[in-house]
Amino acid sequence: MKELLAFLDSIYPLSQQAREYLNQNLKEIEIPKKKFLLKQGRICHSIYFVETGLLRCFYTKNDKEVNSWFMKEHDVIFSVESFLSQSPSYENIQVLEDSLLHYITYDELQYLYNHCPEFNFIGRVLTEKYYKLSEQRLYSLRMQKANERYNFMMNHFPNIILRVPSKYIASYLGITEETLSRIRASNANN
Amino acid sequence: MKELLAFLDSIYPLSQQAREYLNQNLKEIEIPKKKFLLKQGRICHSIYFVETGLLRCFYTKNDKEVNSWFMKEHDVIFSVESFLSQSPSYENIQVLEDSLLHYITYDELQYLYNHCPEFNFIGRVLTEKYYKLSEQRLYSLRMQKANERYNFMMNHFPNIILRVPSKYIASYLGITEETLSRIRASNANN
Repeated sequence: MKELLAFLDSIYPLSQQAREYLNQNLKEIEIPKKKFLLKQGRICHSIYFVETGLLRCFYTKNDKEVNSWFMKEHDVIFSVESFLSQSPSYENIQVLEDSLLHYITYDELQYLYNHCPEFNFIGRVLTEKYYKLSEQRLYSLRMQKANERYNFMMNHFPNIILRVPSKYIASYLGITEETLSRIRASNANN
Repeated sequence: MKELLAFLDSIYPLSQQAREYLNQNLKEIEIPKKKFLLKQGRICHSIYFVETGLLRCFYTKNDKEVNSWFMKEHDVIFSVESFLSQSPSYENIQVLEDSLLHYITYDELQYLYNHCPEFNFIGRVLTEKYYKLSEQRLYSLRMQKANERYNFMMNHFPNIILRVPSKYIASYLGITEETLSRIRASNANN
């Protein structure tokens, strides 16, 4: 938990009140590989900080899975629309590597926003960070070919691309595992 | 400008200091149809509030335009990655209907965030709102067929779909104008 408090503190110094509230209300969960943190149709009630581990976010349609992103150490994770609107989620979050997470509930986060003004500075900065990533993915999806998207990930998120199983990376890129292998082989030869 | 201050006030009451700073620093611009607010490759230096008007955001590649979204009255607009990182933009913002905008620069916004704590509450809430829309577009792009995406827009953004020229709506949906006409005709017959 110390790591999370130091992380938040580095964005904007936490007040004594916020620090005490977090100490009292932050919960910890160890969640093994393959387990779900959230299933489609459920409401995402909490926001999580990944201390260690790796998770994926994916949609399903007609039994087909489409991977939408991957989250690792020091990421803040939640199902955006479900958490912010407290409405049923259209996505799933599943653990890819045994993970240690810290979390608070939606109501606890609102308490912080309403009672500790500086927590809005932190919330704003983190929301901006993930909003930028979301817009990058939109651009990438609309404007880049699979090999360009792969290279973008290799340059910006090498830790993800090297740790996430190929089938999920291929699904994120919207290509088959065979095409992904060809892109990798072609990069290795260049 | 009164409209904008009332809008911000409705999210979180503005302090006297923030109100005065905005009164002194908010600028107004009337910008006619077809003009560009931002061109690809330039840095987005300001954040705009649309009092009246309609604009589009689009990418270009090999002379092909891909429309990414549309913004109208009461929207807060900026090129997300360019503005937040103060880096060259990969998108264009063009006026579709004569528009009246209010804006402040990146540095002025940072001044507000650093000196008026409650402005972070407002910034956080607005960033969450547009982050949710960005995630909705990602889901829609990956999981919905063109007619589903059209119907989603009709249900949630009827004002946009009725005001934006068909060629831009078709480009947003990734279909031809002919296919868009067929979807519209099919909906009218149901």
